[in-house]
Amino acid sequence: MTPEPLVDPAVAARVKLWRPYVEAKLGFRNHWYPTLQSSEIEEGTPVAHTLCGENLLLNRIDGKVYALRDRCLHRGVKLSRKPECYTKNTITCWYHGWTYRFDDGALTTIVTNPKSDLIGKRHLRRFPVEEAKGLVFVFMGDIEPPPLAWDVPPGFLDDNRAIHARRVKVNANWRIGCENGFDSTHVFIHKNSILVEGNDIVLPLGFVPKSRKAFEVVENDRGPNGVYDLLADHSDPVFAASMEGEDVLHGHIGHNRVANNISIWLPGVLRVHPWPDPSMTQYEWYVPETASTHWYVQTLGRETENDADRAAFERDFDDKWRDLALAGFNDDDIWAREATEPFYADDRGWIDEQLFEPDRNIIEWRKLASARNRGVQTLDDLRR
Amino acid sequence: MTPEPLVDPAVAARVKLWRPYVEAKLGFRNHWYPTLQSSEIEEGTPVAHTLCGENLLLNRIDGKVYALRDRCLHRGVKLSRKPECYTKNTITCWYHGWTYRFDDGALTTIVTNPKSDLIGKRHLRRFPVEEAKGLVFVFMGDIEPPPLAWDVPPGFLDDNRAIHARRVKVNANWRIGCENGFDSTHVFIHKNSILVEGNDIVLPLGFVPKSRKAFEVVENDRGPNGVYDLLADHSDPVFAASMEGEDVLHGHIGHNRVANNISIWLPGVLRVHPWPDPSMTQYEWYVPETASTHWYVQTLGRETENDADRAAFERDFDDKWRDLALAGFNDDDIWAREATEPFYADDRGWIDEQLFEPDRNIIEWRKLASARNRGVQTLDDLRR
Amino acid sequence: MTPEPLVDPAVAARVKLWRPYVEAKLGFRNHWYPTLQSSEIEEGTPVAHTLCGENLLLNRIDGKVYALRDRCLHRGVKLSRKPECYTKNTITCWYHGWTYRFDDGALTTIVTNPKSDLIGKRHLRRFPVEEAKGLVFVFMGDIEPPPLAWDVPPGFLDDNRAIHARRVKVNANWRIGCENGFDSTHVFIHKNSILVEGNDIVLPLGFVPKSRKAFEVVENDRGPNGVYDLLADHSDPVFAASMEGEDVLHGHIGHNRVANNISIWLPGVLRVHPWPDPSMTQYEWYVPETASTHWYVQTLGRETENDADRAAFERDFDDKWRDLALAGFNDDDIWAREATEPFYADDRGWIDEQLFEPDRNIIEWRKLASARNRGVQTLDDLRR
Repeated sequence: MTPEPLVDPAVAARVKLWRPYVEAKLGFRNHWYPTLQSSEIEEGTPVAHTLCGENLLLNRIDGKVYALRDRCLHRGVKLSRKPECYTKNTITCWYHGWTYRFDDGALTTIVTNPKSDLIGKRHLRRFPVEEAKGLVFVFMGDIEPPPLAWDVPPGFLDDNRAIHARRVKVNANWRIGCENGFDSTHVFIHKNSILVEGNDIVLPLGFVPKSRKAFEVVENDRGPNGVYDLLADHSDPVFAASMEGEDVLHGHIGHNRVANNISIWLPGVLRVHPWPDPSMTQYEWYVPETASTHWYVQTLGRETENDADRAAFERDFDDKWRDLALAGFNDDDIWAREATEPFYADDRGWIDEQLFEPDRNIIEWRKLASARNRGVQTLDDLRR
Repeated sequence: MTPEPLVDPAVAARVKLWRPYVEAKLGFRNHWYPTLQSSEIEEGTPVAHTLCGENLLLNRIDGKVYALRDRCLHRGVKLSRKPECYTKNTITCWYHGWTYRFDDGALTTIVTNPKSDLIGKRHLRRFPVEEAKGLVFVFMGDIEPPPLAWDVPPGFLDDNRAIHARRVKVNANWRIGCENGFDSTHVFIHKNSILVEGNDIVLPLGFVPKSRKAFEVVENDRGPNGVYDLLADHSDPVFAASMEGEDVLHGHIGHNRVANNISIWLPGVLRVHPWPDPSMTQYEWYVPETASTHWYVQTLGRETENDADRAAFERDFDDKWRDLALAGFNDDDIWAREATEPFYADDRGWIDEQLFEPDRNIIEWRKLASARNRGVQTLDDLRR
Repeated sequence: MTPEPLVDPAVAARVKLWRPYVEAKLGFRNHWYPTLQSSEIEEGTPVAHTLCGENLLLNRIDGKVYALRDRCLHRGVKLSRKPECYTKNTITCWYHGWTYRFDDGALTTIVTNPKSDLIGKRHLRRFPVEEAKGLVFVFMGDIEPPPLAWDVPPGFLDDNRAIHARRVKVNANWRIGCENGFDSTHVFIHKNSILVEGNDIVLPLGFVPKSRKAFEVVENDRGPNGVYDLLADHSDPVFAASMEGEDVLHGHIGHNRVANNISIWLPGVLRVHPWPDPSMTQYEWYVPETASTHWYVQTLGRETENDADRAAFERDFDDKWRDLALAGFNDDDIWAREATEPFYADDRGWIDEQLFEPDRNIIEWRKLASARNRGVQTLDDLRR
């Protein structure tokens, strides 16, 4: 049986320089992705979550988180439909009692036939898990996982960086999320955001590139791999729009310079520095859920020296930044992605789009992602 | 990339005499269609409307209506999702500020990069517009548009004809609408309509054709092209139904003879004269919206001599005919079309149907429409 | 036009021993199936019902039930959308007055053109009907129907057997229903059912097969054809589950031994004896409705000697068994089938499943069903 393509092959064939990226409707395989927040997984309480089309069952045992495929080997039902855990280390399928160990996926017994020859010889697919900065990262792949640090933006894991997060589902493919975030001229949709005026931020209407090569591409055999858009150096901000000889619109010239340094990293995470305030950095992931949805995992980081700093940051986050920046400001981005999705949903958008000069950073990202990913997630990966 | 067929090619191949008609799931291209009523498009207020699968953005500027494709060239988003008009002649895409002139679709500036090389070199697809009789007609096509008069029934545009309209969406393909309307024996569904008794109309149960050729086919290189069903001359009305030797049902023998003259015209508009009263004519369009929906644009016309006549007609329409005829009576037709749609939805209906003698007018219509249309609307037309 | 496969041909080709079963997404053709209960079809009141993808119109005339295809020959509309019966023996299509006789489907007249050449020459497809034990059985097929007794479990039609029934729609393919019912180890899902404790039933956690051939396969050129699972003789019940050296769960050791004798019969009906009580037998059908739904027709039978017995059984059924057994207990099965459906919905489940030793009875059933069915229902059958 030939593998079913997720993407119209005729479309993919026409996008020579970034074909793997176009094919990666379910994301790239063999990468680390954030899933739930650590606080969402309690000891001994299995929870379901979907990542790159794969249904996962996550559980915390003696503090450590494990991830299994949420599909019994026998008849394919989801264990999460009615989780039955008779020991802390195992989950038993509600249907016929097939029992799996969380740490390695081994079929340790079958309640309904404890003499079955299959016991000890079958494994449920398991996925490596690491927790960092309050997020549960899952390695969606088969190979020996590389260090988590290879798949996050530089600095994110620094010891003195405190992180707070928010997660929301977006009805758009994950690549629409990446490109919305890295796209410099989408600032236009934020022109009336209360964050801008309230926080006295410099926000132009757009950017005129001064050079075709205003990017620094970071390529490592190991990682992380990413693209910096050297926006501040290689473009002129646009602060006024003129039509038919008249000034019709202006950007916002505030006192706080932010977002000087924007970069995007495999497998699909943006770093904006500083943002939304000179004291912070935003790291945000566009994590594939299904072919038409992604998890928007937003985090704000701040360097902190001591517990008092950390407590103050937590207070600031809860009182102000979550609502004003991660929700208020970025909800415009969610709206824009969902409005873009239909054009790309049948894959034709990749060949019918007409990019313009400021989109060269997006082209760099597509090329890097196509060259440096560790594999394309396929329907077959979901079935093996 | 070969064009995707809208219709099952194996089905279309088996319908030799009217294959183009069967292929025209989204209607015929290069024709004029009514869209909104003039009163629905206000000065400087863009509105979205879908015609033959094409998403349109309509706006009125200095009194004149313009129609653009509602899809930004850049990333394919709908301009109508958040219309931003910074001058009366233009619309600016809410996402990256691409700005189009309504009259010719020209990309006049890009707010986020006013130095882009694309400015002045790209055009959004525009469609010709004409207003007549209170309706906004759009020419769905690429060629130099012929006069509107070629695509409406004879007499519709006459100076002394006052027209009032109603528009409703129907969950059935446009051809199901055409065939329901032109089909003489569908009178059977109206047998209990209060319009019939209330207005003392002659309404038989059906018609027995007296001749195989009871039609006048009007074919012009220019237009309009249509088929008259010479029902009154070439068929015997049926006023009683007999089953197992017993009379079981009767038609309605009233005093008002109506609907003597029924004709259908490209691109899908019916003329019924007189109707619903000896003083009026009904013109009704079945306008393709999507492959599974059409706009039912119903109009009643009356010859008027002066302002008093016109005022009286408007009063009659508002007080009586809109509710009693266009809604009450024709709602039965809408119900019938929606009940017919599933059989044709997978295209098999075109080969599985079994027509009978009174359907010969429908066959004439299919043949005429196949021979005289100016093109079939395709998925590729929506993408170019 | 080549027939459209209902099932992915690449999947079907990989299931050599039971390919017809895998192909029978809409069930087997040329078999008798229960549809409505007799009490649901009143004299002169047509009702719609879907069986094996076929839309039926059932009516009772002078006490006898008839079944026609619910689709007018002319334009394919459902007669049941607005049934018009001007004589007790006929139904007239609401659209153009095509009139069919219930007993043979003959087109007896067309109200709108009573001189049509088609009258008397066309037939609507009709299906044989038999009533037994309060159920209306329909023969879904073209051949001369065999006796009903060939398609029901042995004993079901016995004169002294009183039967009471319940019918419910399940959102799963009919084969998921069959396999859930015949599967011996699915007892595991019932471990907490109040029927078990309340009725003091012996209910193990599962069964360890003692032999590979613990089945009696009944194959007849005529019928019925079925598989007995000789569970009581050839397996050891499991009453305790041990994990990591600890007892974690126990079955229920009651005083009532039930379900000693379980068998499944073409075209998809289970017999469980005795159940839910030593005095009764459960017969339950998994009747294909669409490719993704089935009718779960549950019946309980008890041998009765006289009217007093029968009245007592009716009382017991109404007061206790319908709610406690057919609803309460079996609702867990419905839940399980609907949870299993997604894995098989794209046909891949048939090759991705991993059966274990106790599933050998299911393999016997698949082989028998593949060898002894009288045909596979196809999309073409629905169109002829």
